[in-house]
Amino acid sequence: MKQRMEASTTSRRPGGRSARVRAAVIAATLEELAAHGYSGLSLDSVATRAEVHRTSIYRRWRTKEMLVLDAMLEQAAETVAVPDTGSLRGDLLELAQRSAAIQTSPAGEAVVRAVAGEAPGNPELAAANARFWAERLELDRTIVERARGRGEIGPRADPGPAIEALLGPLYFRLLVTGEPLDPGFIEGIVDLVLAGCLWSGRSR
Amino acid sequence: MKQRMEASTTSRRPGGRSARVRAAVIAATLEELAAHGYSGLSLDSVATRAEVHRTSIYRRWRTKEMLVLDAMLEQAAETVAVPDTGSLRGDLLELAQRSAAIQTSPAGEAVVRAVAGEAPGNPELAAANARFWAERLELDRTIVERARGRGEIGPRADPGPAIEALLGPLYFRLLVTGEPLDPGFIEGIVDLVLAGCLWSGRSR
Repeated sequence: MKQRMEASTTSRRPGGRSARVRAAVIAATLEELAAHGYSGLSLDSVATRAEVHRTSIYRRWRTKEMLVLDAMLEQAAETVAVPDTGSLRGDLLELAQRSAAIQTSPAGEAVVRAVAGEAPGNPELAAANARFWAERLELDRTIVERARGRGEIGPRADPGPAIEALLGPLYFRLLVTGEPLDPGFIEGIVDLVLAGCLWSGRSR
Repeated sequence: MKQRMEASTTSRRPGGRSARVRAAVIAATLEELAAHGYSGLSLDSVATRAEVHRTSIYRRWRTKEMLVLDAMLEQAAETVAVPDTGSLRGDLLELAQRSAAIQTSPAGEAVVRAVAGEAPGNPELAAANARFWAERLELDRTIVERARGRGEIGPRADPGPAIEALLGPLYFRLLVTGEPLDPGFIEGIVDLVLAGCLWSGRSR
């Protein structure tokens, strides 16, 4: 975990021309994804949109998969920071709402569908995606850990299944059943997961 | 709902040459999916493998999408019948285990990934998939309804979120994070959902 954290910190160093190029390329990648989807995106089209030299992109990201994963990680880090509303229900609701908003944005949906379709045949993409999710889920589990720390739920509540039971149904609707991610559905999942934490966390 | 039930009953009428052709074609479709994936499957290759005349397939199924969806529905109906073990935990566990077994079989995974990748651009496939899932989830919700009927959980427990919180994390791992669907993970989700039903179902 420490290694992953250091790697992502290094890749997001602030300041200077290098940081400006990086920000422009990441923004252009998300825009290209939204406009043309994963299959229509190329390092060249990103270079044109970002107004940077193509070698700057090839040197830093090497492949399309790495560029898209990096953009996805950046977007998720910025827009899905770990909520801290003061209550477990508030945190679960905010995390689910932010996740749903990203998944249903054109760029977000394009990345999710690209990973679902192409990860099995692309080990480099699969590995980068696995690193992203390991870090993301570890961050999200702090929501449940903090609720235990506040005494809002008991010490037996298990953060891992709670977070996957919260996020899983959102992707299930997007990728599998095709049903909409409407507010009533999201609240129903939040309340089920909250109830699960309350019951399973209690001392017996 | 009644209409859906009648349609699926009609399409699975037993007995005779027609039923033998149907069984051979469905089996060949699943085998072709496992061997070549969704994109490599054609009605002609299925006809060859099933040793039936290609017009028998075109007449009955019309398109590749309809054939694959029908095979998927048939496989799910046979191997993911609604469990009835006598306890809510037993039923949830069995449903999750059967669902995981199908998703991780070569043909099952091929269908799931094909739907995730192609449904947005293929309205006919999306509609058939939506009908399949509407029926499937309605069947699965009877697990929670029966547990309420037995008094095992209270009357407020909501079957919809419970079933999606059970199945969602399995697809989340398969399609999104790539983590394995191991027994410990499945039991963790089952226990979280069971706890959610117990807490949310109680009278207040």
